[in-house]
Amino acid sequence: MENIIDRLMESYNNCPVTAKIDTNLQPNRAVVEHIVELLQRIVFPGFFEQKKLNRDFVRYYIGETLEEVKYNLEKQMKRAFICTCKDENALSEQELDIKVDNISKAFFEKLPMIREYMETDICAAYDGDPAAYSKDEIIYSYPGVYAIMVARIAHELFLLEVPLIPRIMTEHAHSKTGIDIHPGATIGKYFFIDHGTGIVIGETTIIGEHVKIYQGVTLGGLSTSAGQGLKGVKRHPTIEDNVTIYSGASILGGETVIGEGSTIGGNAFIVTSVKPNTRVTIKNPELKYQNLDKSVTTEELDQEDAWFYII
Amino acid sequence: MENIIDRLMESYNNCPVTAKIDTNLQPNRAVVEHIVELLQRIVFPGFFEQKKLNRDFVRYYIGETLEEVKYNLEKQMKRAFICTCKDENALSEQELDIKVDNISKAFFEKLPMIREYMETDICAAYDGDPAAYSKDEIIYSYPGVYAIMVARIAHELFLLEVPLIPRIMTEHAHSKTGIDIHPGATIGKYFFIDHGTGIVIGETTIIGEHVKIYQGVTLGGLSTSAGQGLKGVKRHPTIEDNVTIYSGASILGGETVIGEGSTIGGNAFIVTSVKPNTRVTIKNPELKYQNLDKSVTTEELDQEDAWFYII
Amino acid sequence: MENIIDRLMESYNNCPVTAKIDTNLQPNRAVVEHIVELLQRIVFPGFFEQKKLNRDFVRYYIGETLEEVKYNLEKQMKRAFICTCKDENALSEQELDIKVDNISKAFFEKLPMIREYMETDICAAYDGDPAAYSKDEIIYSYPGVYAIMVARIAHELFLLEVPLIPRIMTEHAHSKTGIDIHPGATIGKYFFIDHGTGIVIGETTIIGEHVKIYQGVTLGGLSTSAGQGLKGVKRHPTIEDNVTIYSGASILGGETVIGEGSTIGGNAFIVTSVKPNTRVTIKNPELKYQNLDKSVTTEELDQEDAWFYII
Repeated sequence: MENIIDRLMESYNNCPVTAKIDTNLQPNRAVVEHIVELLQRIVFPGFFEQKKLNRDFVRYYIGETLEEVKYNLEKQMKRAFICTCKDENALSEQELDIKVDNISKAFFEKLPMIREYMETDICAAYDGDPAAYSKDEIIYSYPGVYAIMVARIAHELFLLEVPLIPRIMTEHAHSKTGIDIHPGATIGKYFFIDHGTGIVIGETTIIGEHVKIYQGVTLGGLSTSAGQGLKGVKRHPTIEDNVTIYSGASILGGETVIGEGSTIGGNAFIVTSVKPNTRVTIKNPELKYQNLDKSVTTEELDQEDAWFYII
Repeated sequence: MENIIDRLMESYNNCPVTAKIDTNLQPNRAVVEHIVELLQRIVFPGFFEQKKLNRDFVRYYIGETLEEVKYNLEKQMKRAFICTCKDENALSEQELDIKVDNISKAFFEKLPMIREYMETDICAAYDGDPAAYSKDEIIYSYPGVYAIMVARIAHELFLLEVPLIPRIMTEHAHSKTGIDIHPGATIGKYFFIDHGTGIVIGETTIIGEHVKIYQGVTLGGLSTSAGQGLKGVKRHPTIEDNVTIYSGASILGGETVIGEGSTIGGNAFIVTSVKPNTRVTIKNPELKYQNLDKSVTTEELDQEDAWFYII
Repeated sequence: MENIIDRLMESYNNCPVTAKIDTNLQPNRAVVEHIVELLQRIVFPGFFEQKKLNRDFVRYYIGETLEEVKYNLEKQMKRAFICTCKDENALSEQELDIKVDNISKAFFEKLPMIREYMETDICAAYDGDPAAYSKDEIIYSYPGVYAIMVARIAHELFLLEVPLIPRIMTEHAHSKTGIDIHPGATIGKYFFIDHGTGIVIGETTIIGEHVKIYQGVTLGGLSTSAGQGLKGVKRHPTIEDNVTIYSGASILGGETVIGEGSTIGGNAFIVTSVKPNTRVTIKNPELKYQNLDKSVTTEELDQEDAWFYII
């Protein structure tokens, strides 16, 4: 055992990227997740409580919850700033306190707007989905609602240039929902995600109002071979108002604009802009039907048949 | 802070869909998830216990667990009925007690059948998957087994017209597995889901016996532009016995029937019925090979090459 | 209630595959997940702690954590061996103690190497992704990093022929990330998974160094109709060094080799080997554009348009 510990200690020296020893404290993922939970209660008051939310006490309840968010968020933001800041730019503890206080105030100012946006999202989901039995059901159970809420919260922190925390939040939502929205993405009102698993929405995506997106849709970039060289460049598409994108479609590239009122068919692959009010569909790949009653020899199987086998 | 709380309070008034204040109690998601866990222990006794399940005591153990399910399920059902019921149809507390007692009894009657179905599912998984080392491994670790179990449980509650709770259950499973099965879907014995991530099975889907489905398969609807207008209509396909559907295939529409014994190839897109014993494959899209040793100028890249870049 | 319990007891007798009564103890999934968490702290020391990791104490901290892993892992391995072992091959308790002690030692010997590999994975992720703001962010939040770490850990236990536990570990990661890597898969250094949801990497896959894989990629088998008959056969592809595979691509078959330096375009479907330094793209399916300003009658909708509706 001693020998293994020695070798691990050695590896901590040799591979310092993956070892945080004697460095400043970093944000704690579990606490960040707890902040998201508390914010969910402020955004959807009464939905995730054990007790009935009484009108006379809701003010105190919200005040208390906000205070808990403030305490935890400021602590985590301080850690995030300290551990990402180069020494030469280090703030004094007092300066840092002021900074995170200002940021949390600015963030709290956005909460009513986030709520207003979420209200429109819930209405869009109900209007758009015949499988929804009530708006309550949507708030309780739809993964898309959770992912959008977290994205809206994280986006405000992202705009306030908080490091690490926004992405920890959205990746937590990604883990719970299979919906991967980068905190940098800008998303308008009345946004509806149905099913959602496999959706990817990249950092510089811009989405208008009344947009509907189904499972497996990618709003992505073209080539990443330039890697960090592309940092900050608009690499992801712009989706204008009233656009619907069906499942499995990919829309790629920072200069790609899907014009207002357009509809993108399932599995379509789009790398150039689409004019407003356009329906884009892919030609349905030809299907091949074969009667299985007749036995088929291996020689008769050609490469196309391999599709049949894909697992 | 006072100002922010004022604005939030105002938003609770202005956006009432997303605020449950002074309303009746709603089901609690955490408790519903706990009910699923308890039921998992009844369906697979001894698999998820910390202790060995002794034959002499199993009767008491199951009795105790059932009692805990009964208490929690009835409480949550009462909340679900109260908060979705229009005032004019409100039951007295006593009537409601009788109603949920009857429902939980009817639901418990189904548990042996759910177990029997799950036994067939485990056998189908073992027989169908060379990567499985034992049936135990399948029960412990296969996400498909968990998703199917929850769907079978939720479906019985759905048939008993319990609101909210069935969908909270299946969306919990969706979150854990990436497999999205609506509680309305009807699923026969010997159902096997391999890998599973990205699967969507819609509300009015009917699935026969000995059906196998791989990751990314959608059993979905056509157009939802009619939204709530389609409520209750059969919008999703029927899959007859002994059908295998390979990964990424989409089968859509309420009148689409995949006939007995058929096989649907990977990525196929089906919107019309398929006769029994048919193999349907899509023509493999033509591949383009390009040697990367020769340097390629940007002009030489045409739109097709964009596929290459998709992220 | 008595009646329901009777019927459940009967079902435990009739469906024994799904009931573990009076059998030996099996591994506990929650404990196995806890082991993964402890190992994560050893692989990435200081990242997932509540407290700052002080250089003077890191040795004790790691020693303590390793001891906790050792205790739990050996206990779970004993259970896994006992419950999968045929009676005729049963070891005495002492023999079993020696066996699991040897295995846990052999496994611990691999930890420095796992760390070294993870260091290369983090660097590959940072270099390859313009949306990454720091290497810390990648360690904290990228689902691909978590899935790869668990796969590397589980693979070592798989090679040491530990039953059940490796798969429970990787399916736990699958549940958290949507990335399904079988513990049998062999994965080289500098492996980068971006986004990740929907990825499937089969049991006998071999992956070289500097390989990059995007969401929805399947490295899978051809036909599973032979089921358990294929156990142990190489059914999944080999990916050589410096290969990039874009989103939605499927590479299938045990004899399929993707040669060094090649790039596989999005949605490509590959069932035969690809020579080194080749770019393979699929011909972009033809797109059909239709102006939605003109109203469309139902008759004008042909089958191709159904793509448009896919949900």
